[in-house]
Amino acid sequence: MDSGVTNERWQHILKDYPRGFIAYCGLTPTGIGHGHMEARVNIKDEHRQQDGFIHAGVMATMADHTAGYAAYTLVPEDRRILTIEFKINFLRPAYGAALVCRAKVIKPGQKVLICQSEVFDVREADETMVAIALATMAAVPITDLRAKTRVD
Amino acid sequence: MDSGVTNERWQHILKDYPRGFIAYCGLTPTGIGHGHMEARVNIKDEHRQQDGFIHAGVMATMADHTAGYAAYTLVPEDRRILTIEFKINFLRPAYGAALVCRAKVIKPGQKVLICQSEVFDVREADETMVAIALATMAAVPITDLRAKTRVD
Amino acid sequence: MDSGVTNERWQHILKDYPRGFIAYCGLTPTGIGHGHMEARVNIKDEHRQQDGFIHAGVMATMADHTAGYAAYTLVPEDRRILTIEFKINFLRPAYGAALVCRAKVIKPGQKVLICQSEVFDVREADETMVAIALATMAAVPITDLRAKTRVD
Amino acid sequence: MDSGVTNERWQHILKDYPRGFIAYCGLTPTGIGHGHMEARVNIKDEHRQQDGFIHAGVMATMADHTAGYAAYTLVPEDRRILTIEFKINFLRPAYGAALVCRAKVIKPGQKVLICQSEVFDVREADETMVAIALATMAAVPITDLRAKTRVD
Repeated sequence: MDSGVTNERWQHILKDYPRGFIAYCGLTPTGIGHGHMEARVNIKDEHRQQDGFIHAGVMATMADHTAGYAAYTLVPEDRRILTIEFKINFLRPAYGAALVCRAKVIKPGQKVLICQSEVFDVREADETMVAIALATMAAVPITDLRAKTRVD
Repeated sequence: MDSGVTNERWQHILKDYPRGFIAYCGLTPTGIGHGHMEARVNIKDEHRQQDGFIHAGVMATMADHTAGYAAYTLVPEDRRILTIEFKINFLRPAYGAALVCRAKVIKPGQKVLICQSEVFDVREADETMVAIALATMAAVPITDLRAKTRVD
Repeated sequence: MDSGVTNERWQHILKDYPRGFIAYCGLTPTGIGHGHMEARVNIKDEHRQQDGFIHAGVMATMADHTAGYAAYTLVPEDRRILTIEFKINFLRPAYGAALVCRAKVIKPGQKVLICQSEVFDVREADETMVAIALATMAAVPITDLRAKTRVD
Repeated sequence: MDSGVTNERWQHILKDYPRGFIAYCGLTPTGIGHGHMEARVNIKDEHRQQDGFIHAGVMATMADHTAGYAAYTLVPEDRRILTIEFKINFLRPAYGAALVCRAKVIKPGQKVLICQSEVFDVREADETMVAIALATMAAVPITDLRAKTRVD
């Protein structure tokens, strides 16, 4: 993954990443590359579940959104990404100070892209993988997307 | 599904549902039964994604958490529920005023329970199914759970 | 589900169902309707795994293929169905004399269709659900399909 | 992955792999290691689907079974593996002379193990990844397993 930002398109994607629910959840992008995206969230009480662990929903949101933006790096500018589906396995409870998510496209495509996300729990000195996801993304022309609020 | 609350245990579960990330996301339980749970969220700007639709992460969080509490209605009081994995399909973009989630246990078990969640978009007069999930839940003794923050 | 066959198209689909690997596995279609498909396999030793249960692969093959043909009932004649992905939960071991699979389309679409399959173990007098699957299918023009053996 | 067989236990596992449905499908193990398993199938007409591609069911069966045996390398001898669930993405149609599957355990456990399988299409000189799966496996005492044919 390129650590820096290499062009205008990537600048746009990095700005676009943390909006709406994602900003509300405190997720921020930390890396971008061709078919790659990385993000981080610093954990606060609002990210936890009833037993004090980080909520699975935070990890799922992060895995989904970061995979979507990994896909977004590979499609033309007039396309947007919608999640068709994803599946996520939680490997162990997460309770660290932050989560890091690394997503990559494992099968590019004009209309359908398959992505994988790994979520890591940042515990003191090291990272432990806590979740892994496979996601299927649709690349949809912006014009089609607008129509979706009117008809299915 | 029983529309009312029939005993102390169910009262406890209904109170336990909206904590941490779930309270932060605005989800509230609206129904409970043996192996059933229903919840609702009124949509605000903070639930949306970059194109104005409700974020997939909100639906995933709701599907996961509501499935977990459906499972929770069936296990002994000294057990807690952890999500092993889930898979969710997004059927169409969601943009209504609220989401409703109905979850049920389709295979009970002492240690592993399989659940299904359906998420509906509340659009003016009617509901449209926007997501469907299958989830695998672990019922874990509380004592084991505490140990998990110390060793894996 | 319509129990009989109502037109030429359905006759064609019923004939098309049991070919190649599906014929080899002994699966036969037993019902068809708009967005619905049902199939059956009588269990022989060749369907079992090392402990004598019916192999998960038989159930997965059946869930996938029957979902694909449920989708096939809804697309134009110049389209074929390819599986993008599926997820299957095995609810309990299967060991009966036959399996029955019922699949339906839960979200139709021009290019992508979402289907659900349920697999039942036929044990003496009754059926027990042993597996449930969610599948994402692509409807692909036949012409595109032929090209896939030459370029990706 | 260790290319050879290093002990009696591994010899036992290699012999146990190709039984019942797996032998019928022509799958053979080609490598074994701690938490790793590799298998191969030479493609015949009986593995194909209606359009001449290798059937998704063959890949799913291979991904599931090989993941199960990767898990089997890590559990005590009195345990057997049952698939709780798996999810598989098909990245592109497969049509080569053989398939190779490589599975590994990504999260070991006493009772639940999470595995990943990759399936490759062997096309002339090289291999192309055609499917990727995430699977959740249960390690069950043999004694419990026998009881499962009598009561759920």
